[in-house]
Amino acid sequence: MRNIKFIVAYDGTDFSGWQSQPGQPTIQGTLTDVVEKLTQCRLMIQGAGRTDAGVHAAGQVVNFKTQSALHAGEFQRAFNALLPPSIRVLAAEEVGPDFHSRWSALAKTYRYRIFRGRVVPPFLWRYVQHDPYELDFDAMAEAARRFEGEHDFTSFAASTGSEEDDRERATTRIVYSSELLRVQNGNSHGPSEEWVYVVRGKSFLRYMVRKIVGTVVDVGRGKVAPSDIPELFALRDRSKSGATMPPHGLCLDNVEYPDPENSLTGDAPESRKLA
Amino acid sequence: MRNIKFIVAYDGTDFSGWQSQPGQPTIQGTLTDVVEKLTQCRLMIQGAGRTDAGVHAAGQVVNFKTQSALHAGEFQRAFNALLPPSIRVLAAEEVGPDFHSRWSALAKTYRYRIFRGRVVPPFLWRYVQHDPYELDFDAMAEAARRFEGEHDFTSFAASTGSEEDDRERATTRIVYSSELLRVQNGNSHGPSEEWVYVVRGKSFLRYMVRKIVGTVVDVGRGKVAPSDIPELFALRDRSKSGATMPPHGLCLDNVEYPDPENSLTGDAPESRKLA
Repeated sequence: MRNIKFIVAYDGTDFSGWQSQPGQPTIQGTLTDVVEKLTQCRLMIQGAGRTDAGVHAAGQVVNFKTQSALHAGEFQRAFNALLPPSIRVLAAEEVGPDFHSRWSALAKTYRYRIFRGRVVPPFLWRYVQHDPYELDFDAMAEAARRFEGEHDFTSFAASTGSEEDDRERATTRIVYSSELLRVQNGNSHGPSEEWVYVVRGKSFLRYMVRKIVGTVVDVGRGKVAPSDIPELFALRDRSKSGATMPPHGLCLDNVEYPDPENSLTGDAPESRKLA
Repeated sequence: MRNIKFIVAYDGTDFSGWQSQPGQPTIQGTLTDVVEKLTQCRLMIQGAGRTDAGVHAAGQVVNFKTQSALHAGEFQRAFNALLPPSIRVLAAEEVGPDFHSRWSALAKTYRYRIFRGRVVPPFLWRYVQHDPYELDFDAMAEAARRFEGEHDFTSFAASTGSEEDDRERATTRIVYSSELLRVQNGNSHGPSEEWVYVVRGKSFLRYMVRKIVGTVVDVGRGKVAPSDIPELFALRDRSKSGATMPPHGLCLDNVEYPDPENSLTGDAPESRKLA
C-alpha cells in the first residue's frame, strides 16, 4: 500500500462543505469519486480539516492509501483533469505509511477576510465578508491577540463538535498566534483595504474561527472591550460571545507537519516560520 | 433630463456578453432591468465597449438619461442592492447632457491574463487563460510592441464588426500602447507568474485584442517571428494571424474621457498617465 499526500485548494462557494453527505456536492465526495474512477476502489480520502459549507481552502491537506501503480505526480495530473476547476491539487507526494493528514498535523492556519471598501468588486464577493462601517482597528487587533494561548473555547464554538470529529467533547485548544492585519489593495479605480484575521493553532472547534471573528468585530463596534475577553472565556457560554461570521470570508490557508527527516522527534510548531 | 454616468465592474463568466439579447443573461439587459425597476422607464443603458460573452470588466463605463430625482449616489446604492454580486457599480456621478459613454471615450484599456504556473488556483480560473508551456517572453514582448500605432487591423479581428457597432466597416485603429508584462504572484504554497498583455487604444475591432494575443502567443511558440507582423498587417487576411484567444482571460480595465473642465478642447489621450 502506498500513501499519497495532496495539497488541495478549493473555492467552497458551490459545495456543502468538506465532509461527504449523500446527495450533496462536497469536496470529500468529489475527491472520493475521482479516486474511485482512477483506481476502481472506493477509498476514504482524509482531510486535515473539515471545512464547513462555503468555506474555502488554499492549502487543505489530504491523504489516501492505494495499491495503484500511479506516481504521485501522475495522480495529481489525473485528478486535475477530472476535477472541476473549483478544486485543484496543487502538489502531490508519496509519504510514509504513518502519515495521516489529520492526526499528523502540527498546526493549521485559517484566514478570515473582511473587505472594508464601499463596494465589493465582483471578483471578490465569494471570498470576503463585507463590512464598510466604522470599526476600531486597534481595539480589534488587541482583542485578536487575547485569543492566543491555551484556553477552554466553549464560548467561541458551536454547541458541539470539532473540525475533526462531531463526537469530540474536549473544548480546550491551543492557539499559537491570532492577529488582525491590514492589507492594502486597489487598482486604477481607487484604493481599497481588507482587514484579515489570521489564526494558527493546533486544532480548532467547530465554528471557532468564525465565532472569534464575530467577537473581534463586536469589539470593533464598541459592544465589547478587549479586556472583556477573559471573562467571556470564563463564562463558557456561547450565547455571550459574538455571532458566527458567514462562511465565505474563511479560508483554510495551510497545514503544517513535522519535517519528514525529523519525524521521529517531531518539531515545535511554535518555532516554524509561516511563509 | 439628467445624465448619469457609472463605472461598472463585472465577472462575465455567467453572462452572454454585454449586449442585450432576448432570453440570454447579459450585462446590458441586467442593468436595463434594474433601471426600469427604479424609474419605471425602459431606458437604453449605453456602454463604452461591447464586451463579448465571458469577457470581464474592471472599469466599464455606462450612462443613461433619466427624469428621476434620485442623486447619482442614490442610483449607485439602489443598483448595487438590486444587481447580482457579479455586477457592481463602483462609482456614479451626474455628467453633462453631451456625455456619451461610447462616443465621448478617448481611450480604452484591455488586459489579457495568461497564467504561467503549473496549476491554476481555484480562485483564478474564471479570470486567466492557462498556458504552462514553454514560451519565449522576450520575443512575445517585442511582438506586442509591433501593434502600437495606426494600422489596418483586418488581419487581427473578426470578419465583421467593431466593439461599437456590428455595421462598422472601417478597419483602421490607433493603438497607443501594447505591451506584455510579467507579474509575480504566489503565496505560501509557492511562487506563480502571470504574463499580462495590456493594450490601450482609441477603439477596437471585434475580437481584436484576443486575435492580437493569439498572434503574440504564436510568436512565443516560435511559429511566427516578431518581424513577420508587418506582413500580417499587409495581408489583410484574418486566417493568417493567430487564433482568437478564449474570452475569460480578457478584461476591460478602464475607459478614459476628457476632463470635464477641458471638455471644449479635449485632451490628448497619449499624454494621460494610467494609474
